[in-house]
Amino acid sequence: MIIIVKRGATREQITEMVGKITSMGLTAHSVEGQQQYTISVLGKTEKVDMNEFSSIAYVESVFRVSKPFKLASRAANPEGTRIKLKNLEIGADRMIVMAGPCSVESEDQVMRIARAVKAAGATVLRGGAFKPRSSPYAFQGMGLRGLQLLKQASQETGLPVISEAMDLEGAEMMMDYVDIFQIGARNMQNFSLLKELGKMDKPIMLKRGMSATIEEWLMSAEYILAGGNRNVLLCERGIRSFDSQYSRNTLDLNAIPILKSLTHLPIVVDPSHGTGHRHLVAPMALAGMAAGGDALIIEVHDRPEEALSDGPQALLPSDFSELMGKLVKMGRALDKNVITELERERTAA
Amino acid sequence: MIIIVKRGATREQITEMVGKITSMGLTAHSVEGQQQYTISVLGKTEKVDMNEFSSIAYVESVFRVSKPFKLASRAANPEGTRIKLKNLEIGADRMIVMAGPCSVESEDQVMRIARAVKAAGATVLRGGAFKPRSSPYAFQGMGLRGLQLLKQASQETGLPVISEAMDLEGAEMMMDYVDIFQIGARNMQNFSLLKELGKMDKPIMLKRGMSATIEEWLMSAEYILAGGNRNVLLCERGIRSFDSQYSRNTLDLNAIPILKSLTHLPIVVDPSHGTGHRHLVAPMALAGMAAGGDALIIEVHDRPEEALSDGPQALLPSDFSELMGKLVKMGRALDKNVITELERERTAA
Amino acid sequence: MIIIVKRGATREQITEMVGKITSMGLTAHSVEGQQQYTISVLGKTEKVDMNEFSSIAYVESVFRVSKPFKLASRAANPEGTRIKLKNLEIGADRMIVMAGPCSVESEDQVMRIARAVKAAGATVLRGGAFKPRSSPYAFQGMGLRGLQLLKQASQETGLPVISEAMDLEGAEMMMDYVDIFQIGARNMQNFSLLKELGKMDKPIMLKRGMSATIEEWLMSAEYILAGGNRNVLLCERGIRSFDSQYSRNTLDLNAIPILKSLTHLPIVVDPSHGTGHRHLVAPMALAGMAAGGDALIIEVHDRPEEALSDGPQALLPSDFSELMGKLVKMGRALDKNVITELERERTAA
Amino acid sequence: MIIIVKRGATREQITEMVGKITSMGLTAHSVEGQQQYTISVLGKTEKVDMNEFSSIAYVESVFRVSKPFKLASRAANPEGTRIKLKNLEIGADRMIVMAGPCSVESEDQVMRIARAVKAAGATVLRGGAFKPRSSPYAFQGMGLRGLQLLKQASQETGLPVISEAMDLEGAEMMMDYVDIFQIGARNMQNFSLLKELGKMDKPIMLKRGMSATIEEWLMSAEYILAGGNRNVLLCERGIRSFDSQYSRNTLDLNAIPILKSLTHLPIVVDPSHGTGHRHLVAPMALAGMAAGGDALIIEVHDRPEEALSDGPQALLPSDFSELMGKLVKMGRALDKNVITELERERTAA
Repeated sequence: MIIIVKRGATREQITEMVGKITSMGLTAHSVEGQQQYTISVLGKTEKVDMNEFSSIAYVESVFRVSKPFKLASRAANPEGTRIKLKNLEIGADRMIVMAGPCSVESEDQVMRIARAVKAAGATVLRGGAFKPRSSPYAFQGMGLRGLQLLKQASQETGLPVISEAMDLEGAEMMMDYVDIFQIGARNMQNFSLLKELGKMDKPIMLKRGMSATIEEWLMSAEYILAGGNRNVLLCERGIRSFDSQYSRNTLDLNAIPILKSLTHLPIVVDPSHGTGHRHLVAPMALAGMAAGGDALIIEVHDRPEEALSDGPQALLPSDFSELMGKLVKMGRALDKNVITELERERTAA
Repeated sequence: MIIIVKRGATREQITEMVGKITSMGLTAHSVEGQQQYTISVLGKTEKVDMNEFSSIAYVESVFRVSKPFKLASRAANPEGTRIKLKNLEIGADRMIVMAGPCSVESEDQVMRIARAVKAAGATVLRGGAFKPRSSPYAFQGMGLRGLQLLKQASQETGLPVISEAMDLEGAEMMMDYVDIFQIGARNMQNFSLLKELGKMDKPIMLKRGMSATIEEWLMSAEYILAGGNRNVLLCERGIRSFDSQYSRNTLDLNAIPILKSLTHLPIVVDPSHGTGHRHLVAPMALAGMAAGGDALIIEVHDRPEEALSDGPQALLPSDFSELMGKLVKMGRALDKNVITELERERTAA
Repeated sequence: MIIIVKRGATREQITEMVGKITSMGLTAHSVEGQQQYTISVLGKTEKVDMNEFSSIAYVESVFRVSKPFKLASRAANPEGTRIKLKNLEIGADRMIVMAGPCSVESEDQVMRIARAVKAAGATVLRGGAFKPRSSPYAFQGMGLRGLQLLKQASQETGLPVISEAMDLEGAEMMMDYVDIFQIGARNMQNFSLLKELGKMDKPIMLKRGMSATIEEWLMSAEYILAGGNRNVLLCERGIRSFDSQYSRNTLDLNAIPILKSLTHLPIVVDPSHGTGHRHLVAPMALAGMAAGGDALIIEVHDRPEEALSDGPQALLPSDFSELMGKLVKMGRALDKNVITELERERTAA
Repeated sequence: MIIIVKRGATREQITEMVGKITSMGLTAHSVEGQQQYTISVLGKTEKVDMNEFSSIAYVESVFRVSKPFKLASRAANPEGTRIKLKNLEIGADRMIVMAGPCSVESEDQVMRIARAVKAAGATVLRGGAFKPRSSPYAFQGMGLRGLQLLKQASQETGLPVISEAMDLEGAEMMMDYVDIFQIGARNMQNFSLLKELGKMDKPIMLKRGMSATIEEWLMSAEYILAGGNRNVLLCERGIRSFDSQYSRNTLDLNAIPILKSLTHLPIVVDPSHGTGHRHLVAPMALAGMAAGGDALIIEVHDRPEEALSDGPQALLPSDFSELMGKLVKMGRALDKNVITELERERTAA
């Protein structure tokens, strides 16, 4: 059940209403928007008489959500969620780009690439310290040392950092080093981990499982939201289809306008994993933005032939820079502002 | 085997070379480009000594094509094929939009919609007279009468017409009424029909089968090309995936940059069938263009609730007009000119 | 709408009822079973008052079919359809095996293999004269000569013949040579062809499309049934999935018990195309029978390394013979009689 | 690299050889079979001179494994792994059946069903205490209390117990209560958990991910094996396909003969989750056995309409008993002995 409260209501009135909901054995989550407060009510709401709430003077409307996802539903925050990160915002009518190497491999490598992606316009640095690899014999990431290097790169460039957590232990270790936790496709339905992430206060970027339906994906986001963590981003990274001869995955851009209608959570597009081939990354990045994505996450490596993982899908810094130029131009045509790091620093100053 | 011949070669030299190839029991197809002639050689080419050709003065290079598709391969026409249609061209660095109703339903309906899509900027009119329906009890199209109405709309508006042929008999009937033959997803591997189309001289738009791989699709195009018909367009119309709750199909935009690297044939994107829902059409049309599509084909109906087929995916003329505006803007940002009918008439004048 | 008529009704009463239905602008198809007559009524039945029929003394029950497939629905022939073929029956509580080469390649080849599969227990001979090949440059079948050789093999061995028709012209040519027409996966939704087959009086084995849903498959059968041809067999031949590394297709045995509950049509299982690898054929043939299949169709070749198509999936005659032995044993355990050719000749004598 | 050692070699010789391998910076895993010892060598084996081992007198052969999975490959234990469990064995030329409710719901429920499945012939009791549910608001299992009830049922009936572990904490809690750990489809690539399971000495039944390829599945098993735990069972539980109208998943029986050729690990088939509908369970269980499965795992509930999860796919005890009868009969026909609990008790006595 969702209760829309007029903006004029006082904090006391909101608190009183939340108390009333709690006293009925239900749970309330409220979101403060520009135009209104939105209170999502969870629990056995079938037996609640909606008039008890709709008759209150400052309540604008009350309705039930028929979807299995409640807190993730568009109705729970009609204006759309903005993830705040230092002086950066993700969501709404702007677009940002996250970029960096697949894996952190050395101090020199991560510093070089961090500087290059910042110069090209990226606003968040990506890089893996814990790598989910199909084979137990493959490079599994640098671990803690990788996290330290990411932090160092973040401090020098000013770019916040996103990195993947594969388990609770890793997530706890990452707390002091990382700004956004990425949950990979293979863990999208690791419900034990999702529950723990719900208790943390870092933004979580939840990648779609390889063959997860839109609804399953939103239900996994709901696990995190229901735990109290509101800062969830959804990342489309390619689904598994019947044809992988020319692309490793099938980047599903249909998901973007579908999600826009179903949820208030910001949407990130990953054309690097979504295709697996360098020459497909730029066209699919442009397409991802045109379809309505709020952010892109792109793998960049200046020596892809030496990369310890996913070299074939990494853009060279020069290609990335060229792509950023096109994104900025396209943003102007589509009235969607592409925020680059230089601009962010200027705005923040 | 592909032979690249310098532009300075005379027609006699080309004819002589084709004769030599034929005398070896092989078949030659030549394409005249701006920079060069490209001769594709089919048959048992394994035993041919490539030096026999590469040593000829006006031959630039000779190489074997390892892909199973030969005539459809990029190498067979590196500059990209342009389909010429009256005073309109499809392919190269421009984009056009085909639009119209799913089915022709009445004279009034098709005339109304044809005028509306022309006014909004469409350059080709689409409309079905023969409809492939899952159920034998569903509306199967108006047949010959539908073709006559399409021709009438074409004559009034000046828009060329594209319509679906389901069998040889229908294709023959359509000869006098239709400018481009569409082959639907369900007939993509109807090899008997493809062979017949190879003998015709109308452009063929070949839709991708619901779960056809990129290679199977190009092999089906190869059937038409091998028959002698060079005017083939490929149309991505959504593949079948594991999730159809919120979209009927999954428009596979990855296919566009993949095809661009593999083939010289122009690529059309169908966001209407590709998604099946009106609210997804505009974002996916923009994304299709950003990914590199050469044309879009979009269903438009001014009274979608009365449509005899596919009403839920038809755009209203006003929405279509708004989309055209965005496409034109985006085209400028991406250096891809969107040709509209008015512009075409002006250019043609 | 389905009308169940008691067995005691006279032919005149049935004729009278069919006349009544026809006079209402509807179409009637009746099936005579052991226990009852079943009359399927097609057309705008929503407006028919069911009491008009249920009140007739010899009518047992009247009900509407909510599925989009009507004539193919289980209710239209609850006892299950038996396809009669010379002195052989397919369907009900027995099982038969069709076997032979993928393609007819020579007189010697087809005669050798026909004798071998008969000796091992096959009751129908399979063999392709027209081959749907992904590539226009691949062997396309022997055509008419292939049909003549199949007929010769049929006459010598007494085995009826099944062969694939790819178009109307081919089907007409096959009339005098073939006992069952096979429609391949790629033509499952070639509706123009299905309509023509509905007018013929040969049994049709309709293979499932590579990614056809159960419902689409039954709707395609409905096209044939609605044309008047009641002798339809459904053949599961493997669907397309995300993993083709170790099997060409994924034989979908779930389809068998699902179809048993939805339709009265007999079900054939093709473990050869369904897997594409020789070593998978026998286990999947046994599994197909255990799941409830009414027939198997298996590729056998005595020199698979020389086969012009699909050699890697052909069983050797000795392996086929061993498999037949296991099927007969398993049939006894499952109370499903496996009819072999020798037995058939004995019974027929 | 795999080294096959003749059976006559002494323990000292084996120990010496393992020492030699270790001294080269490599890891050795040895398996003692009836006919031979098999030593798998992991690490940078490319540089090892194979003659160093093949020249040793008691070594029969040495070869490299080209597959990415080494310890899971058939070559690492050609005779096939047998999982020993009290006086029960899984694998080889016998078949066993695991059965029980989806979730443990109450003492009464689990005791009733445990007795019923034992009486019908099941040899292992299944039941979930921790449930991976798509929705955070759905019943999540009884937890520790559920484990206690499973143990109680195990003690009364003598049936060992299988139950799902969703995380390390749960797995540790289960140590004293459960005989086989099940890892669910959603955690198949939870590599952190797999690594921990590799250190435990309980058998692990690893379910296939919803769209995991055969190779990814075996690589996940390799994670457990590489940790030192050799007791891994693979469970096919249905893959995700494009059609879920009549079955929740598509039980992929092709996987069984494919796995038999690739790996030595025993294979369990789950027709309950694999189909999701009661009426499909028995035919697919029979088919799973016919295809070569070593075990079945089947959900049984005596009051499915009251079940807290997956009621629609649970067999009634009477249906389960009837199925067991058919399996025993079919086992005789296929020379695969179906071991039932009564038989096990008799043998053990």
